[in-house]
Amino acid sequence: MTAIDPAVEAHLEATRAARLESYFEFLRIPSISALPEHGPDMVRAAEWIVGELTRMGFEHAEVSPTPWHPIVYADWLHAPGAPTVLVYCHYDVQPVDPIELWETAPFDPFVKDGRVVGRGAADDKGQLHMHLKAAEALFATRGRLPLNLRIVFEGEEESTSVSLPGWLAANRARLGADVVVISDTGFHEGNLPAITESLRGILYTQIDVAVGPIDLHSGSYGGAVENPANALARIISELKDRDGVVQVPGFYDDVRPLDEATRTRMAALPFDEEAFRSRISAPALAGETGYTVLEREGARPTLDVNGIWGGFQGHGEKTIIPAHAHAKVSMRLVADQDPEVLWPKFRDYVLQVAPPGVTVEVSKLGSGRPSATPVDHPVVRAAASAIEATFGRPPFFRRNGGSIPVAATFEETLGLTVVLMGFANPDSNAHAPNETMVLDNYETGIRTICLLWDRLGANGLGG
Amino acid sequence: MTAIDPAVEAHLEATRAARLESYFEFLRIPSISALPEHGPDMVRAAEWIVGELTRMGFEHAEVSPTPWHPIVYADWLHAPGAPTVLVYCHYDVQPVDPIELWETAPFDPFVKDGRVVGRGAADDKGQLHMHLKAAEALFATRGRLPLNLRIVFEGEEESTSVSLPGWLAANRARLGADVVVISDTGFHEGNLPAITESLRGILYTQIDVAVGPIDLHSGSYGGAVENPANALARIISELKDRDGVVQVPGFYDDVRPLDEATRTRMAALPFDEEAFRSRISAPALAGETGYTVLEREGARPTLDVNGIWGGFQGHGEKTIIPAHAHAKVSMRLVADQDPEVLWPKFRDYVLQVAPPGVTVEVSKLGSGRPSATPVDHPVVRAAASAIEATFGRPPFFRRNGGSIPVAATFEETLGLTVVLMGFANPDSNAHAPNETMVLDNYETGIRTICLLWDRLGANGLGG
Repeated sequence: MTAIDPAVEAHLEATRAARLESYFEFLRIPSISALPEHGPDMVRAAEWIVGELTRMGFEHAEVSPTPWHPIVYADWLHAPGAPTVLVYCHYDVQPVDPIELWETAPFDPFVKDGRVVGRGAADDKGQLHMHLKAAEALFATRGRLPLNLRIVFEGEEESTSVSLPGWLAANRARLGADVVVISDTGFHEGNLPAITESLRGILYTQIDVAVGPIDLHSGSYGGAVENPANALARIISELKDRDGVVQVPGFYDDVRPLDEATRTRMAALPFDEEAFRSRISAPALAGETGYTVLEREGARPTLDVNGIWGGFQGHGEKTIIPAHAHAKVSMRLVADQDPEVLWPKFRDYVLQVAPPGVTVEVSKLGSGRPSATPVDHPVVRAAASAIEATFGRPPFFRRNGGSIPVAATFEETLGLTVVLMGFANPDSNAHAPNETMVLDNYETGIRTICLLWDRLGANGLGG
Repeated sequence: MTAIDPAVEAHLEATRAARLESYFEFLRIPSISALPEHGPDMVRAAEWIVGELTRMGFEHAEVSPTPWHPIVYADWLHAPGAPTVLVYCHYDVQPVDPIELWETAPFDPFVKDGRVVGRGAADDKGQLHMHLKAAEALFATRGRLPLNLRIVFEGEEESTSVSLPGWLAANRARLGADVVVISDTGFHEGNLPAITESLRGILYTQIDVAVGPIDLHSGSYGGAVENPANALARIISELKDRDGVVQVPGFYDDVRPLDEATRTRMAALPFDEEAFRSRISAPALAGETGYTVLEREGARPTLDVNGIWGGFQGHGEKTIIPAHAHAKVSMRLVADQDPEVLWPKFRDYVLQVAPPGVTVEVSKLGSGRPSATPVDHPVVRAAASAIEATFGRPPFFRRNGGSIPVAATFEETLGLTVVLMGFANPDSNAHAPNETMVLDNYETGIRTICLLWDRLGANGLGG
């Protein structure tokens, strides 16, 4: 097993203190994409990154405008015959509310118990900074990179990446690459190294049920007209059976069956079901019969009501039949389900099971495809090997129940495989107060990246 | 068929203009029980009534204090051997919002197209005033009444009669009577004379479902925990089947079957189903199989969600599993269902059908017994006969789907049969802008009351 280039390691060891200071400098820019008052900070963060990229040796580094927050682009393409990797991270961060729960100022980072504490330490400025410093170490020791790199750092990831799809489509011609590496995920429980092999997609809908324009007196009309809230409850109850199986016809048609290799891989993940339950104070876990908790969360589609409302919500009693009732209903999808194929099936089924006597409307509010990386993809294999060489143990393969639309956006727009190699510790408090990044994940992860680039440069994608 | 005493008729005819002026004088007092700033008006209205009662010949007339708005009490008990009737009306009115929809000032009554227009014209100050003027006509022509009367006029009916049950219980000893006559209902569609033979009771509950203290990410937990909103929908869907039949075990045990006589009586009611549907703009009517719309509304129990809420209700998408979800669920009951007997059955059934993986709480928010008057009760028969003699046609018997808790309160606290003899035109706009009372209903109804008192005094309750 090849270890990291000693010259690169020597450089990294010699620059540790300066690197931490640079990491802090980057975190101090309050690049909150959601808040308009931080617009200038977004530009400042993007310019700071471009300054770094240019200084170390990247070319075409630019703050590329979009309708909202700029995208940072750069490339270095002077390794003929070597693969081209497009690296994606994001430089924007979540807001800091509730600010009173932070132990210190969110944008004044410091180290405590071996962790960097501050907004963005892990999600995702810390991981972006790892890529900067890995490339810098390679440029500094050799004046070149071992492979071709394209950099795409986004500033709207925490605000639904409004501009990215359009930007990718508009820049498709100059974004040719062999693979996309996204560093915006994390390790497994216990801070065990992991690669995320899949993300769930989503189909988000709203169901609106009405009987008429105004609330009705439940004495004068109760029993003689359909009640929209009762009707909505019946519709929702028909969407999933008591065993957690979605009842929409054709819903499972394109679900990739869980093969034995995948189930074995998932069963090998250390997972404490009782700790999972206890952490959320649920009275018990639930879900589709015949699947483990991790399979239900990561490898099986599901359906959830995200919100429901109609009629009287105050204290005490009001005797009305609500004029209308509403629910947000979303489905998490797995490969190879296609939200655009499922949408009409869902809509038709809702209308079919709706009781007579009410009008029912079904709307699609949003969708995103699921994303899955073949675990035998050469870049996945190389990443796993680099992780094992640097962290000392092979990574677990995780299936993430959430949806990172960016991954599917890259797959769809550029037609590229996406490898999700993230380094955040699972207790990073991403999106929450007191966000942290374990410094060892950061430092060792930089070495993982250097080693991965070296190996891909030397061996290509042949396998 | 005995007609009204010619002397009484002559008195009523001679005093018509003065009576209307007195009616207006009473309506001009803005006795809105719900609004604290009208507290002095409530006392003024009560004192105005007591002045009238005293002047015409009642005894023990008093503004009787309660913890909130006073109750007007009076009696005249000098007809030994004749029945004693307790008359209930209320002198408080609904607020006038939305004020901009009134054609004129709500407390400046006037006559338009044969109707008195103004807040309280029908509900219920107009009907209270009818009882005042009927008694006054009898006192004025004879110096006495043909039977014993007790007057109980309440000031909180539009504010859930907070004080009445306690006042009745505290005054039980001095409220001895043979029957209670309540004039707070109305005629049938088309202004056809009617007696209300039943009111539905109510059991009002709340169901609270929770999975834990905080909303969960629907990606990280979707499929692995029960969703409280989905669980609540399942519970609600189990409460009633697709045929409108309530599924709570034992729910129908005490429902008095609809006998043929009652069904025939109800079928005789003029009723335009399409007009009923069209008035509320419902796409179709619905309800329990095997019953007519009027039976469903008036003679069968039912169950309705009055409100439902949980999770995200805003625009767009939020991908959460709501920490908790809630519903207000009420049942309308018919004789002889007892909400206190049904409550534990309902609660146990909800807990039984609830899916595992969530905590479920069921609370009772309120209840009221159904009320039914035997149509062959001698006072009902006498009232029907008096209506026919004065209005020229026999009354229909209506089953009112709503609940007037006051009726059951009298039945329960005093153990008396309640006769619901009301005179409001069905298009009275009670509780709404431009409330009206058809003057002919008012004038003829006063004669109905005089005739009824005369007949009950002459014939007693023997039948």
